[in-house]
Formats: sequence, structure tokens, C-alpha cells
Amino acid sequence: AAMAAFHFESLEKCLENHLPAEQLSEVRRLLYGAETRRLEIPKGTVEVASERKFELQGYGFEAASEELRQPRVVRVGLIQNTIVLPTDAPVAEQVSKEPGIVEAVIFIRTGFIAGDHLLRCLPGESAMPFAFCTREKLPWTEFAESAEDGPTTKFCQELAKKHNMVVVSPILERDDVHGGVLWNTAVVVSNSGRVLGKTRKNHIPRVGDFNEATYYVEGNSGHRVFQTQFGKIAINICYGRHHPLNWLLYGLNGAEIIFNPSATVGQLSETLYPIDNWAAMSLSSETIMIMKVNNEHFKNEFTSGDGKKVKAHHDFGYFYGSSYIAAPDGSRTPGLSRTQEGLLVAEMNLNLCRQVSDQWGFKMTGRYKMYAEELAKAVRDDFKPNIIKE
Amino acid sequence: AAMAAFHFESLEKCLENHLPAEQLSEVRRLLYGAETRRLEIPKGTVEVASERKFELQGYGFEAASEELRQPRVVRVGLIQNTIVLPTDAPVAEQVSKEPGIVEAVIFIRTGFIAGDHLLRCLPGESAMPFAFCTREKLPWTEFAESAEDGPTTKFCQELAKKHNMVVVSPILERDDVHGGVLWNTAVVVSNSGRVLGKTRKNHIPRVGDFNEATYYVEGNSGHRVFQTQFGKIAINICYGRHHPLNWLLYGLNGAEIIFNPSATVGQLSETLYPIDNWAAMSLSSETIMIMKVNNEHFKNEFTSGDGKKVKAHHDFGYFYGSSYIAAPDGSRTPGLSRTQEGLLVAEMNLNLCRQVSDQWGFKMTGRYKMYAEELAKAVRDDFKPNIIKE
Repeated sequence: AAMAAFHFESLEKCLENHLPAEQLSEVRRLLYGAETRRLEIPKGTVEVASERKFELQGYGFEAASEELRQPRVVRVGLIQNTIVLPTDAPVAEQVSKEPGIVEAVIFIRTGFIAGDHLLRCLPGESAMPFAFCTREKLPWTEFAESAEDGPTTKFCQELAKKHNMVVVSPILERDDVHGGVLWNTAVVVSNSGRVLGKTRKNHIPRVGDFNEATYYVEGNSGHRVFQTQFGKIAINICYGRHHPLNWLLYGLNGAEIIFNPSATVGQLSETLYPIDNWAAMSLSSETIMIMKVNNEHFKNEFTSGDGKKVKAHHDFGYFYGSSYIAAPDGSRTPGLSRTQEGLLVAEMNLNLCRQVSDQWGFKMTGRYKMYAEELAKAVRDDFKPNIIKE
Repeated sequence: AAMAAFHFESLEKCLENHLPAEQLSEVRRLLYGAETRRLEIPKGTVEVASERKFELQGYGFEAASEELRQPRVVRVGLIQNTIVLPTDAPVAEQVSKEPGIVEAVIFIRTGFIAGDHLLRCLPGESAMPFAFCTREKLPWTEFAESAEDGPTTKFCQELAKKHNMVVVSPILERDDVHGGVLWNTAVVVSNSGRVLGKTRKNHIPRVGDFNEATYYVEGNSGHRVFQTQFGKIAINICYGRHHPLNWLLYGLNGAEIIFNPSATVGQLSETLYPIDNWAAMSLSSETIMIMKVNNEHFKNEFTSGDGKKVKAHHDFGYFYGSSYIAAPDGSRTPGLSRTQEGLLVAEMNLNLCRQVSDQWGFKMTGRYKMYAEELAKAVRDDFKPNIIKE
């Protein structure tokens, strides 16, 4: 969707600006669940963020204290970014620029999140334009790089080691071991600086201008969970968020924190984005929803197959930001802005995952054996849907 | 949750009362998707509803016209009701009263929905108090009745035939064929007046005061879809809405309209309720979310296991209404009130289901074979979670 003609910073800001205090509080309860604690942000840090024109928000999710387990408190940061250079700048220049906000995040880290464990994640394919709408191979496939030792991975390794943080880095992967094919991949770098592994996008869209199936195919890495020093994490890349089984299998493999790095546009999915906290709740996992922000303009015209834009055009649509973090109890932070880059940090006690799992018991009431059998039948050639007729 | 101390009719009313027009329109786009058309309600009907103190809302979902298929337009009505008599009234009196609103619905039918196909559904176990918090067997199990020829079914049969509508009727079932056991069941009555069949609740909660597992066990009816004259329907009862696979299997068996009759309380799930339109979208089905409304007071004290209420008490919590209908494209109607009984009618062209399915393609990108295999492994004794360590 194009942005609203009037200024609309975000749903949250709109509600804050217009609702009386007690009504706002009730609306927030309905939309976001239990009130999240605000993290204190040092004043100097706020000023830096403001100068660099990005939003800075921090929230804390609470868990009950237990007698036998110590709290496992980690901080997770998500970065909502836009590309740095125009899409028609020379590729060599574009790839040499990490999004500007990364620099800022590192700069402010000492003030805001020093001494804490940080898991960082960028939106889907964040370091390059989301060029899959164009159906052009060059120059876009030049952005593809090795997951193990490409320049983005190397950059993240330095970052991770220096700042003692785990980094999740979504890239367009060139897999030279298997004939130089392309994948949509997230690389996980340990806080030791080592590449812990990679995971690939399981579900590839063929909807609207998302011509991704022209560039790469369904991932072959299953539902890996990465045991980091700060918790067990998994990455459900982009379109996978619309596939409940994708979330579920990451959950059944033990993920405590699931990242969803995405790039998608307003007209297509904006109504669906704020409600993905259902997944956090169904899995008793923290979910981290990270969306790209702003427009990307392409030099060559392209057409849309969905008939919505009759004339050839140069832009894909508006990446609507609004990134947020949801807790296993279904509560969530407000979203970042629809218009600005930003950093959202949540402090979370991972003990909450097991507490919520015990409270709701979904993994016990889930009847997975029955579903394994029903699904196995449903995909057979001779499947007969269970339909009752008069 | 107790109701707010100040007057809070619903999220929708609150936003309407406080937001300027263009902000309201943008907020509604974010929360509800594509604007739904308002159905015209005859003036006399509005007055009747107002006298009887129930809310009356009607919306239309649009589908594109096709060249080879005629539109398949049906109207679906959901009834958000409260019990009629106090919970300690004699059982014989309680069971002889269908919720008062049913009578009103029939009365106004000629004015509002005459000549249209109507599928009607009440909230979970609507004709009786939601007494499973008490852990008492008598008198509550006296409300159980035969799905095939119990009084509620007979009542619905008359209703269905007289008004040419399909009726979905959630009851507490007494299954005398199998030793008189209890089930949580929904009966589907065809517009011919015949019982088309029944379907049972697949997932039984053990959370908070939902002591339902004390009364009945997991359903054994799988994921039946009922082919009615007005479309293929299924019923995902209550707690099943938190189990993504339950929705999915109804979808894979071909359901075009899925009813979710529920009774649950504010503190536990109210934040999660408004977001179940994710399911409609994932399945390309219409979903009909029906919630009970108001408080129910029990004569005998009971205690809660979750430590939230330290003293024994007489009420379960507040049934928060807010029933709504979601379309396969993820758009949804505003919710009914949190405080009043109501009737919500949606006119829908069922062609939208296949159109959205073709647009998003989830059943093609869903990789169900892989998931059948992964799920089958995940439930084995010797399952090893897929965890990558440094």
C-alpha cells in the first residue's frame, strides 16, 4: 500500500495521540496483552538515535521466579532497516555498505545494552534490494554470497566476537558446493565468532510481485535449532510465517526464540502482520518479527501479474516496518514505526517458555501422532476428503 | 478479566468514538483489512433488536466475478448469547429455555435475512452454564443430551426446516451407544431438518479453571466436513482454535466455512481472540468466531488452581463476546460488543475461497509430505531434536 496521504507514523502512535489514558490502557490490553515493562534507555543514547533518525525502543517481558531454576535473562535486538544506496548504484558499492543503522547500533551498544547478551537480526535479504519483483537475474544475483565465508558473514563474525553477541544474518546464498545454486538463507554466527550454521527458507511465495520462485527453490535444511550460549534459536524466514507447520516444527525441535526476518509490502499482508503473535503463543516460544521499511525504486520498469497495477512501474510497494517482539504468553511489544529505521530490544527471561508451555499444555493436547497420520493420508494420490453428505 | 471500571463497549466503539475519520480508516485497514460492506438492515428490525437489547450487525465480503462460475452467495449468522436463567434455577427450567435471542433472531429473520441461506451457530455449550470450573458432576451432567434426538437437536430441526437454514448446535453430548459417556459436540442440522451429523471437540484444555478434562475426553470424529446446500462447513470447537493443525486438517478436507464456537474468559485469552483471522488466511476458508458473553455465577464456591484468586469464589470470569467473522483474505468484520448479546450476519461469496487459495497458493507451497514425515518422527520415543551445537 502507498503510505496514507496524511501523516501516519504507526498504529501505536495514532492510538497514543487520540485515546484518553484509561481507554488507551484497555485497547493496549486487547491488542498487546500484559503490559510490557519499558527498558530504561540512557539519555545520550536517545540523542544519538534521534540524530541518526532511527527509532529506539526497549521492553521487558516478565517471568515468574522459580525455586530450582535461575532466571535466564537475555536481550534480543531486532534491526528494522532500509537499504543504504539507490538500487542502481554500482553493485560493488552497494555490497560494501552494511545498513547504516548497524554502525549506529554498535555505537550505542555500550550505552544501552552493554554487558547483556544480544541476539541481533536484520530483515529478510536485508543487505540487498528486494529485487525479485523485477524478474531480472543480473545484476541482482551478483549480491549472492557464500554463507560460510562471504563478506556479510565475515562482517558478522567480527561483530559477534567483538561484542559477545550472536548474530542472525539473512543473505542471498550462492552455494558453490552444489553447482553454484542460489538459496534464501539465514546464517547464525555464534558469539565466539564462529559460523554456527545456516538455515534455508522453507516456503517460497508465488504471490503478487513476489517472483522469488524464479530465483531459488524450497529450502532443504529442515527445521534446525541452534543452541547458542543465550538460548535455543531458530529462523523462520519470511513467507514461512504463513505456514503454521513451519512454526510448529521449529517449536517441536526445541526453539525458545524464533526469528522471522521479512520483506513484504502493505497492500499484500499488512493486516496479517500484527497478528503473528498467535504463533508465539501456540509454540510457547518468543517470536521476533522483523520487517524491512520504506520504498525501493528500480531503474527498469516491470509489470505485475495480479492486475492491480495496469501500467508498468518502478516500485514494488511499501515495506511497512512495524517490527515487534511477542512473548510465549501471546503478549507483544508495540510495533516500531511504519516509516523509520529502528532498533527494538526486548529483555526476556527464557524460563517463561516452559512456564507458558506448562500452563497451556499445547504440546500435550496437540495430538501430533493423529495429525502425522492424517497429513500422510491427505497427501496421497488416493486421498478421499472426509466429507459428510445428506 | 473483570470488565473495565469505566464503560468500554468494545474496541471498535472506542476507536470510532475517539479517532478522526481518516485515522480511523487507516487503523481499521491495519486491524481488519479490506473495508467490509455494511448490509442494510430494515428499520423495523433495528428497533426490535434495540428493544430486546441485542446488537445487530451485518457485513458483506466481496469476491471477484468469474466467467465460468456463478457467484455462490450465502449469509452466515452467528449468535452471541448469554444464558437465560440463573445457574441455580431448576435444571428442568434451564434446559427448556433456548437462549432468548434465538426467538428474536427468528422473529427478525423475515425482515433482515428472508430468502437468504443462513447458517446459524451458537457459542460453545451455549444452552447450559459453563460449569466446568466447578468440578461438580451434578447437576451439570444432567444437561447432557443425545446428539441425534435430544431436545436441543429437535428444537434445531424444527427451526432449520421451517426457515430453510442449516443450524450448527454445540451441546454437551451424552453418548448412550457407548456406555453413556460425555462428549463436547457440535450437531449439524441440514436445512431439510435432518441431522447431517456431529463432530467432537478435538483438543481439551487443562488450563486455569477450564477443568473440562474432568468431564470429557478428546474427540474421536477426526476432521469431518459437512456438505450442506450452502457450502462445505466444519466446526473447530473452542480450544481447537489454538491448535493450528486442527484448522489445517479441516481445510485440507475441503471446508469453506469453519465455525469456532467458544466460551472463554478475559484474563486468559482475550488478547489472542481478535487475531484468529490468521487461520482464515492460512486455510483460504471463511472463519466464524463465536464467543459467549457476560458473567455466570455459581452457587457453590470453587477454587482456582492457578493461584490467581487466593480465595474460593463463585464466578469463572468474564465471557468477553467480541464475536466476528473473517474472510479467507484475512480481512474481518469488527467484533460484536463485549457486553451485550448480538447477532452478526455476513454475506459471503464462497468463490472467494478458491480465489484466495489460488492467489496465495499455501496448499501448494505447504510441503505437507515433509511435515507428515517430520511430525511422525517427532512423536517417536527415540526422537532426536534437530539441534546444532558449537
